[in-house]
Amino acid sequence: MRLLTFLKDGTARLGVAQDGGVVDLTARAPDLGGLRQVLCAGALERVAAIASGVAPDHGQGDIRYLPPVPDPEKIVCVGVNYPERDAEYGDGGFKAPAFPSIFMRTRESLVGHGEPIVRPPESKQLDYEGEIAIVIGREGRRVPEARAHEVVAGLMLLNEGSVRDWLRHAKFNVTQGKNFERSGAAGPWMVTADAFPEGYDDLSLTTRVNGETRQHDNTRRLLFSFRYLIAYISTFMRLRPGDLISTGTPTGAGARFDPPRYLAPGDVVEVESPRIGVLQNPVMDEAQDEH
Amino acid sequence: MRLLTFLKDGTARLGVAQDGGVVDLTARAPDLGGLRQVLCAGALERVAAIASGVAPDHGQGDIRYLPPVPDPEKIVCVGVNYPERDAEYGDGGFKAPAFPSIFMRTRESLVGHGEPIVRPPESKQLDYEGEIAIVIGREGRRVPEARAHEVVAGLMLLNEGSVRDWLRHAKFNVTQGKNFERSGAAGPWMVTADAFPEGYDDLSLTTRVNGETRQHDNTRRLLFSFRYLIAYISTFMRLRPGDLISTGTPTGAGARFDPPRYLAPGDVVEVESPRIGVLQNPVMDEAQDEH
Repeated sequence: MRLLTFLKDGTARLGVAQDGGVVDLTARAPDLGGLRQVLCAGALERVAAIASGVAPDHGQGDIRYLPPVPDPEKIVCVGVNYPERDAEYGDGGFKAPAFPSIFMRTRESLVGHGEPIVRPPESKQLDYEGEIAIVIGREGRRVPEARAHEVVAGLMLLNEGSVRDWLRHAKFNVTQGKNFERSGAAGPWMVTADAFPEGYDDLSLTTRVNGETRQHDNTRRLLFSFRYLIAYISTFMRLRPGDLISTGTPTGAGARFDPPRYLAPGDVVEVESPRIGVLQNPVMDEAQDEH
Repeated sequence: MRLLTFLKDGTARLGVAQDGGVVDLTARAPDLGGLRQVLCAGALERVAAIASGVAPDHGQGDIRYLPPVPDPEKIVCVGVNYPERDAEYGDGGFKAPAFPSIFMRTRESLVGHGEPIVRPPESKQLDYEGEIAIVIGREGRRVPEARAHEVVAGLMLLNEGSVRDWLRHAKFNVTQGKNFERSGAAGPWMVTADAFPEGYDDLSLTTRVNGETRQHDNTRRLLFSFRYLIAYISTFMRLRPGDLISTGTPTGAGARFDPPRYLAPGDVVEVESPRIGVLQNPVMDEAQDEH
């Protein structure tokens, strides 16, 4: 099941994506609330029952996407988590870190599928980072790796957009460059965990800019697996339904090129994982985009 | 006016602290909601009118304190922001950073005044960091320094408790060691901005452990003033009513001693700023404290 949050006639609504369009859950069961409320209530089965066998209410072109969880309590991001392309051959001098690097983003740093990612006037160094994000479905603290799958509600894609020069403003934290308003994107939907019966260790991930592949890797190469991340992060934080864990980006962001290839207005970024979908966003300068 | 959030008979309530006790705003005007909702609605004058001239409903000993804003959208923390004690004499080799270091905490990492701060079983290196935190009262993006005071609702104290060895798990971020559940504290209340007619550039700040002064400084020595922090942070993030900006800690945390003087069960930490109050918390080991 693919759950999405969308704007229609100015209100945020919960829906299920089907091949022919979107089933409007908010119209059919207003008491469901948003996706975070559905997860808190453990109501995914009820959602499935409501959406089963009904015709779509809206065409996918008739809606605007919001981030699937528009109001998460926390968005936890993982830094370097895919090795350099040549690291597996042992000639890259790459030394795996002992622990993952963790930082947080605000909800307002992310837009939905199809909405413009915004380059702020303060920087020309807006960059893409294609990622797969875990959506937490159940509260958990100190979740052991063997039970990590039990707290996963599903997966979505994330463009963990970064303003590179502001990432290095301070020595020990990347908060600034990771939190410009509307600098990244999440979506297009959350694909529920039942779509991944073999787990999360063989998911392909690709980022394209204007159709050109820039990042491509597979979760089988992750330094820190999804189950490790859930166990590690929940050691200190209590995971809550609707929380996101963005699991890191492959090599190939614009900053890695010489000269760097940052995003510019008119560019289109796509993040794809075949069993999740495609998250596509145009890039605009902030002033042009106010609406 | 001193606004607080407290637990009474198992429910979270909004109150005003008076010398003789606490006026129960939730009992007198249930529609006010919590402190964040009051700030979003611009209802501080209404609160003042309700609390004016009435007798307290509860003794201060009859309540349990929660963090004054129990549900902030974001808690933004500033790293190194007071110089070393000897830096002002030019013999410390201290070089001021160009920009502040910024990281975020979750709401669940903080407890209220009087509640135990918890040392997790994963570490013996729980440390205190006394700070003054700004409470945002009005939405703002790219707020100029000259208008920064307009978005301040008030101030509170924060013990930005840290688990030192987990701060250094990763190279570029301190998230882990700053976000153990219940490792810090906020309170006891928010003192509204009208109590600081001369601004925020001459506020004394002291941290004591078991009565012994460990940190002592004054905001006049800040590397980055409150107004600069508001302007800088709002360059990338949209500030919202109820957001917290914790403005950094003076030198003298336990990790700065040789050997380090970390917190242990039974210790009592007090953070004091004369015009705000005293935030006092005992320290307990996690297992002993479950209730």
